[in-house]
Amino acid sequence: MLNNDTIIALSTPPGSGAIGVIRLSGPDAISLTNQVFSGKDLSKQASHTLHFGLIKQGDIVIDEVVAALFVAPKSYTKENVVEISCHGSNYIIQQIINLLISKGARAAKPGEFTLRAFMHGAFDLSQAEAVADLIAADSKTSHEVAMRQMRGGFSNELKVLREQLIHFASMIELELDFAEEDVEFANREQLRELIQRINKVLQRLIHSFEVGNVIKNGVPVVIAGKPNVGKSTLLNALLNEERAIVSDIAGTTRDTIEDEININGVVFRFIDTAGIRETADVIEAKGVERSLEKMKQAKLIMYMVDAQEDEVEVLKQSEELSKQDTPFLFIVNKAELLSQTQRDFYAKHEMLLLSAKDRAGMELLEKSLLEKVNLSQINTSETLVTNIRHVEALKQTQHSLHRVLENIDHPITSDFLAMDIKQALHYLGEITGTVTTDDLLENIFTKFCIGK
Amino acid sequence: MLNNDTIIALSTPPGSGAIGVIRLSGPDAISLTNQVFSGKDLSKQASHTLHFGLIKQGDIVIDEVVAALFVAPKSYTKENVVEISCHGSNYIIQQIINLLISKGARAAKPGEFTLRAFMHGAFDLSQAEAVADLIAADSKTSHEVAMRQMRGGFSNELKVLREQLIHFASMIELELDFAEEDVEFANREQLRELIQRINKVLQRLIHSFEVGNVIKNGVPVVIAGKPNVGKSTLLNALLNEERAIVSDIAGTTRDTIEDEININGVVFRFIDTAGIRETADVIEAKGVERSLEKMKQAKLIMYMVDAQEDEVEVLKQSEELSKQDTPFLFIVNKAELLSQTQRDFYAKHEMLLLSAKDRAGMELLEKSLLEKVNLSQINTSETLVTNIRHVEALKQTQHSLHRVLENIDHPITSDFLAMDIKQALHYLGEITGTVTTDDLLENIFTKFCIGK
Repeated sequence: MLNNDTIIALSTPPGSGAIGVIRLSGPDAISLTNQVFSGKDLSKQASHTLHFGLIKQGDIVIDEVVAALFVAPKSYTKENVVEISCHGSNYIIQQIINLLISKGARAAKPGEFTLRAFMHGAFDLSQAEAVADLIAADSKTSHEVAMRQMRGGFSNELKVLREQLIHFASMIELELDFAEEDVEFANREQLRELIQRINKVLQRLIHSFEVGNVIKNGVPVVIAGKPNVGKSTLLNALLNEERAIVSDIAGTTRDTIEDEININGVVFRFIDTAGIRETADVIEAKGVERSLEKMKQAKLIMYMVDAQEDEVEVLKQSEELSKQDTPFLFIVNKAELLSQTQRDFYAKHEMLLLSAKDRAGMELLEKSLLEKVNLSQINTSETLVTNIRHVEALKQTQHSLHRVLENIDHPITSDFLAMDIKQALHYLGEITGTVTTDDLLENIFTKFCIGK
Repeated sequence: MLNNDTIIALSTPPGSGAIGVIRLSGPDAISLTNQVFSGKDLSKQASHTLHFGLIKQGDIVIDEVVAALFVAPKSYTKENVVEISCHGSNYIIQQIINLLISKGARAAKPGEFTLRAFMHGAFDLSQAEAVADLIAADSKTSHEVAMRQMRGGFSNELKVLREQLIHFASMIELELDFAEEDVEFANREQLRELIQRINKVLQRLIHSFEVGNVIKNGVPVVIAGKPNVGKSTLLNALLNEERAIVSDIAGTTRDTIEDEININGVVFRFIDTAGIRETADVIEAKGVERSLEKMKQAKLIMYMVDAQEDEVEVLKQSEELSKQDTPFLFIVNKAELLSQTQRDFYAKHEMLLLSAKDRAGMELLEKSLLEKVNLSQINTSETLVTNIRHVEALKQTQHSLHRVLENIDHPITSDFLAMDIKQALHYLGEITGTVTTDDLLENIFTKFCIGK
């Protein structure tokens, strides 16, 4: 996977802007740039210095630039790195990249800079993956989790577990060497204790994915209900802006409204309500199947009724909702029109009273949303697993350790014991990249953006 | 216009990418960054150095960054400048900018960095304007013209003219001081010669705008003709890709196709052909007015007929086109179906024979396009005016100088002479920014992108 050539890519987003940054990494990064750079001799400059000059193709000035030098190993990739800040014009950027490719650089593949950093030991694999998460992070919580991960939180935890297991693995292998003498170097009781301790950590990490995934990808929520009960008004109230067009005409909402709302650092993603609008009638007609099928894709349903609707009819809708598995919030909108008796009645049925138009009851609604998805108290100082690959590897580790526990008291299987511990170590190693395959790396880094 | 505070903005295009660059400029750029930067003490570092560190808000790590220091006056703005390279996440960028604003920085207005550079004499006004042109340049030619302008070509030419005029202005003012003695410090014959020489330069520069404008903004071209004559096939052939959907069904083209084609460094912009498609029928019906009105917006019309069409009908369309002012290329497509007699007939009427499907005749078409807009030979080593503001100022200069010439032989008006020369100097000065008003500057720099 590791080539010794010099790669180049635009590292800033494409499009017009004040500045574009073109990054080169590899043994020839500085000497290649030097060939087209008119200014100081870059090959004679110190690391971590900036140099103004011209990029020229023959006599033609392509741009006035600033070249930033990072001399190996003091760089992101641990290789020689040059970052060329040029004017943010697509034309100029393309000209400079083409020129340097003509001098011998190669267009970088997605994530190739970070791959090189990983291969040169700048960080482990789970940290490299966190770089992509960090760039994608769009809320305080997802940012914190990715930042902790990038800075090594998760990796350190795994490292300790792995070292302890390695110790036992070597002890048991030693036993195998002295098999005929029936000695026991690895204390079985201690091993059992260690595995149980590791299992606890694994269990917590695996379990944390439920929260971690929601933090990273947001909570999919469906706002459902009959036409004109005030779904768009509610969305606007949540967004605190006139995002959806609101009118008194039923069906004002255009076919798809998708938007994200950040509540206490948790992103809620609201999903297509047009389909649900149809299904509102279907619920009325008791043809609930298809609509509930749709709702199952959501982690939460916000079902809304109009306070002016008949109470029996409201209860009927509530009962239908209860029959399916997805958690739901039942909201009675336009609650300002209700009598106290009615209010008490709905409250008794655990329905949320709201006046979306006046934003009355919104705080309670936001609190209920967080409670329903079990995220009212996120502790981001704890390690959270946000990567499905990591969860799978953790589960495989757990599985192998489970087999170790099963066999621990049968001395006849101490070679199986060793094998299973090794297997567990393998899976743990896959997370941090101690164990890698080309396929695994390619799979991870092709998801990166080019230039990173 | 010049404030002494420290401004901040994202200088790279918004959106996710590997890197985002946040730029600060002003007396406190380094000390403000230092307050949130965890690493070396930035206030003690040399200019043109790079420093890895953390941006922290209290205990929370917002990002791992590299800070680039430019100490005044060795920077783009001639002020202290810090460029913070962070991960290219909108969330992180917003957090860092907000944090530094909370410490005392101010969000920069569009073009404010370049405005400061101009105010501090880093370059003149026409060069500052060329920075925006450079970023917008999307072809070899427009890039070359903007680069020459940014590097001072135009300004230098004006500077010489202006100095010579200033010399005469002061001589004539001297005469005014000695008015009673009837001396003549300013040789009238030399002045006349100078003005005629200046006028020639002005004339050339004003004239160059016709080419300059086309280079900067492209040549608007309409492809017109009846349905299904092969307009989209031609567009694809010009673009060398399957940009427009082509079929045998008349009216396949969706309502608007706009695209740019770069021929020898000149950008041709093709404009809405759907309207013209309607007007093709209108031409048939001899109701030409409205359609030709539309075509007048174009600098060139490419009118296309099908070789299978009746010759009399083709000539009729050609005659209609000749009645209007816009230059046109008359193209007979599907020429592979023509007999030699027919070919000769059309060639005699200066029609271009083409087989768009097989790309036969394309080279000739491209050559004809360049010839029709008079750009087959662009000499980019000559100064070209590309800015309408500059042309207006040049015309005003010319106007004032014209008055000087008229009055040159009337000693009684030597104070008018002085006034007109001063007026000419004023207009020349507006181009380079020797003379500015707040309105003028605001008008220019608000068109810049934020962060430049």
